[in-house]
Amino acid sequence: MEKNSEIYPFLEKGEFPDIDSTKLKIELTKNPKKKPEPDAMKFGINFTDHMLEVDWIKDQGFSAPRILPYHNFQMDPATMVLHYSVEGFEGMKAYKDKNKNVRLFRPEQNMKRFLNTAKRLALPDFNPDELLKCLEKLVLIDADWIPEKEDFSLYIRPTIIGTTPALGLRTPTSMKIYVILSPVGPYFSAFKPLKLWAEDEYCRAWVGGTGNAKLGGNYGPTLLPGMKALEKGCEQILWLYGPEKKITEVGAMNLFGFWKNKDGEDELITASLDDGLILPGITRDSILTLARGWGEFKVSEKDWNIEELMEAVKENRMYEMFGAGTAAIVSPINVINFHGQEYKIPLDPDDPNSGAGKITKRIKKEIIGIQYGEIEHPWSVILKDK
Amino acid sequence: MEKNSEIYPFLEKGEFPDIDSTKLKIELTKNPKKKPEPDAMKFGINFTDHMLEVDWIKDQGFSAPRILPYHNFQMDPATMVLHYSVEGFEGMKAYKDKNKNVRLFRPEQNMKRFLNTAKRLALPDFNPDELLKCLEKLVLIDADWIPEKEDFSLYIRPTIIGTTPALGLRTPTSMKIYVILSPVGPYFSAFKPLKLWAEDEYCRAWVGGTGNAKLGGNYGPTLLPGMKALEKGCEQILWLYGPEKKITEVGAMNLFGFWKNKDGEDELITASLDDGLILPGITRDSILTLARGWGEFKVSEKDWNIEELMEAVKENRMYEMFGAGTAAIVSPINVINFHGQEYKIPLDPDDPNSGAGKITKRIKKEIIGIQYGEIEHPWSVILKDK
Repeated sequence: MEKNSEIYPFLEKGEFPDIDSTKLKIELTKNPKKKPEPDAMKFGINFTDHMLEVDWIKDQGFSAPRILPYHNFQMDPATMVLHYSVEGFEGMKAYKDKNKNVRLFRPEQNMKRFLNTAKRLALPDFNPDELLKCLEKLVLIDADWIPEKEDFSLYIRPTIIGTTPALGLRTPTSMKIYVILSPVGPYFSAFKPLKLWAEDEYCRAWVGGTGNAKLGGNYGPTLLPGMKALEKGCEQILWLYGPEKKITEVGAMNLFGFWKNKDGEDELITASLDDGLILPGITRDSILTLARGWGEFKVSEKDWNIEELMEAVKENRMYEMFGAGTAAIVSPINVINFHGQEYKIPLDPDDPNSGAGKITKRIKKEIIGIQYGEIEHPWSVILKDK
Repeated sequence: MEKNSEIYPFLEKGEFPDIDSTKLKIELTKNPKKKPEPDAMKFGINFTDHMLEVDWIKDQGFSAPRILPYHNFQMDPATMVLHYSVEGFEGMKAYKDKNKNVRLFRPEQNMKRFLNTAKRLALPDFNPDELLKCLEKLVLIDADWIPEKEDFSLYIRPTIIGTTPALGLRTPTSMKIYVILSPVGPYFSAFKPLKLWAEDEYCRAWVGGTGNAKLGGNYGPTLLPGMKALEKGCEQILWLYGPEKKITEVGAMNLFGFWKNKDGEDELITASLDDGLILPGITRDSILTLARGWGEFKVSEKDWNIEELMEAVKENRMYEMFGAGTAAIVSPINVINFHGQEYKIPLDPDDPNSGAGKITKRIKKEIIGIQYGEIEHPWSVILKDK
């Protein structure tokens, strides 16, 4: 895999030790926690018994990776991550199939994006394949925490933070990569369609910014607009961009529409990655690949805007819309509020009580089938203890 | 002062305790640190003996503020600030005048901006005047740390972080405000003029974003472009915006030009705050106010762009340029590199070895005079122990 130093020769070149999974040190907990009941699980509240950590220091390189009991960090109040947001993360999931195998879904894609996030933060190179080996070991150690229940999984949160305890805004001289695990149920209760507030005052991402990398700084600023959406009676924000009010993302998810376009073609559409505004979602990519494989309708990554969307709704050309991301896989959308005017997005006309459109349901079924090993597919990787 | 809840009625309304300086608890260190020699001080590396902390918990309100020995935080790895960049800060300074009085410079302006930052992060209301009282007490307790040397001061870093230990992207249910202090020398060695890389690929801030609030997320993403500038032989970035390539900021400072404009008028120009792209710098505001008070030339807050700047340089209409901020006060600029072409910005033609332009030097002298109490001015506040 491409390393930072090949693209940014001024980043650390790796004369110093890289992450090395063969040096992994493991210290198991002596006080295992009580596991929560699946029905009581809220997203990202409970954490497993262990965590993975690896530190980097300039001119010294990476420490040996360590799996340790879940523990607090000792953090100097001057630490860079608390002031300048030198932080990024990933979201992945581990699943248990009916044969009790532990599975990951396209984990190499998350590692590739994680490296890209590090790059955008001017953090040094690391070997993502070695990090993944350590992460897999962590998941296996805490495999008992994976709930054996449909739609439940173990959420995996790789995180990268700048740890230099100094206030000057300079390239970090130390950082920490860590991974924590949280058993989770479905992110949204099964197919409760979302009302969206189409937002053209606040803007999530912009050309030349960081919208295409998974930086912490992309998320905090969305909380206030999110509260505005709630005030307007909507659950999530439809992020518009620029004078054309391009349709970009929904909340913290990618956004898809399935419609009859102006040329009369059935088309699954999502914003293109070209402008750097859009997070290259792994669920997004999976949906595009699956739908292209079906070969039943046009699948497009291109600009579209709120005017085109409203026109399609008025002309009954919009079939369905949904958000897509690791946490929820797909989330159906049934209302878009733009400047106080509500636009109704259809669900499945043959089964309106299902709470989602036909394509939304089909995608969810297929991806869950792959994730839980019901459908054989190279995207689903069975973890094996060595 | 305006509180968040008056503008955003959905933010906490303050039924719960607000910050209350009369409840301040003080625990002094038993192990005072060795103070660094002024000549060995690098920006933001050394911290004083004490820090201020106050915590907020939803449905409970603010804790009593505490001045404690400087100490590490115990931080859960799931803490919100580490993932979603719910963080903001301020930069202020304390000075010691020749009569050993401790002085702050327009501190109520920093507190006002800090509250605005909290608001942008969807954090709850607090009383900035009460926070300032606690901060002043902290500065007085560590007043021995203020170096008694010209251009030296005690840098003050109020910080606000979301502390909820949960991965769901939701409005924080807890936060911490804290203040740390660092004795500092001049940020840049005295008047070493800066070479700027005019950047039109990466973008610092955008309309509908967060450029006008002091969020951590505005800073981390500037490190990579900063390394690109260094590669190009420049020390700082001149941030351009949009297709017109508007001149916005320099590095982490506001930017000023002093020129003969197209109408033949002498004019001090800086970008306007109107679009929300510009941090409302307190040094920026002080410079505008002082220069307007002089009444010697036009003083403008308005859009200008790189084309106009290059044209002015070619026509010898650019007199001088400088960055402005709390850390450096003013930083002269002598070269701008745009697409590989260098544009020379004059310093003082009557004293080229001074390393700065006439107006730059005059502003620095006047602001330092006020900050160190040499010039009587309401902006400089003497702290008195009660």
